[in-house]
Amino acid sequence: MSDPSLLQQLIEAFRCLPGVGAKTAQRMAFHLLERNRPGALNLADRLREAVEKIGHCQQCRTLTEQPLCRICANQGRNREVMCVVESPADVMAIEHGTDFRGVYYVLMGRLSPLDGIGPAELGLDRLEQRFDGGEIREVILATNSTVEGEVTAHVLGEMARKRNIRTTRLAQGVPVGGELEYLDSSTLSHAFSGRRDYA
Amino acid sequence: MSDPSLLQQLIEAFRCLPGVGAKTAQRMAFHLLERNRPGALNLADRLREAVEKIGHCQQCRTLTEQPLCRICANQGRNREVMCVVESPADVMAIEHGTDFRGVYYVLMGRLSPLDGIGPAELGLDRLEQRFDGGEIREVILATNSTVEGEVTAHVLGEMARKRNIRTTRLAQGVPVGGELEYLDSSTLSHAFSGRRDYA
Repeated sequence: MSDPSLLQQLIEAFRCLPGVGAKTAQRMAFHLLERNRPGALNLADRLREAVEKIGHCQQCRTLTEQPLCRICANQGRNREVMCVVESPADVMAIEHGTDFRGVYYVLMGRLSPLDGIGPAELGLDRLEQRFDGGEIREVILATNSTVEGEVTAHVLGEMARKRNIRTTRLAQGVPVGGELEYLDSSTLSHAFSGRRDYA
Repeated sequence: MSDPSLLQQLIEAFRCLPGVGAKTAQRMAFHLLERNRPGALNLADRLREAVEKIGHCQQCRTLTEQPLCRICANQGRNREVMCVVESPADVMAIEHGTDFRGVYYVLMGRLSPLDGIGPAELGLDRLEQRFDGGEIREVILATNSTVEGEVTAHVLGEMARKRNIRTTRLAQGVPVGGELEYLDSSTLSHAFSGRRDYA
């Protein structure tokens, strides 16, 4: 028998997880087999179920097992304010951390021509239709503060402005609890130019 | 619908992995669903197969899907030298890092009365039978260099000595590439008292 053992195959399979190398994969496999077999079976079932049933929301493209995600399906959300983000994790972060009550549009990525990610991959055509719908009064451009995130925000901003929709971008500055001494100069510069009246 | 979504269930399921908290679990779930669904299905299948088929070697107690593990089944191994380790990961490390060609006994733990782990849990009765068999000439006590590992080694050493089997313990000292300046004092002290003639 020279083909890999089931244990080896399991260790190899764990390496599909982000940030998991050979050592961690091995530790995970041994941990589950030695100490938590029910947990392993549960993980196997949840993985299969999630892959088979979770698709994209027809309206905002986030991950969901329903045709519409909970936020899009919620009649209590304000459909006049749309927050555009790169990923479902951003939706989760904003839902947890803010009192935003509008709706989202999830690009599932960012413009990155070198990786072959253009307007089609991000569903910008569908976003444009939403813009044309006339319901939206403000688009919050909440893409990441990276080069690609800024480029994406710029393109989306142009799209919205053409239709006279107000666009806003998240404030940049000193993170709460942050010390100026350790802040990178570009953040500090943004914080300075964006300073506000102190009541 | 107030029960957790499939996504939430998947995130929760990932937390059975060692060292995986809420944030990492979320990152893993999103990564697989957004970028590697085949990898997720493969992981699910490997997990289920491993849990269902991997048991313990009848001879050395390590994890294997066969009645005997590859090492115990290998007639080319030297059955006169037995290396006792705490876990299957230790077997893997010794197989990778040394040219040991004897056989193993895997305790699947260490003596730890406070956690309810005594001789029975570690299969010491079966190990005693192996000692009684008369085949073994040397037992290498390769339990960890922790308090519990040392206690376990001590007990095993007594067992072997009663039967006039030679016992050895892995050398302790400066790790290769280690700098004395950063070594803990107890390791340094072991390295001193265990110093060897320099040819």
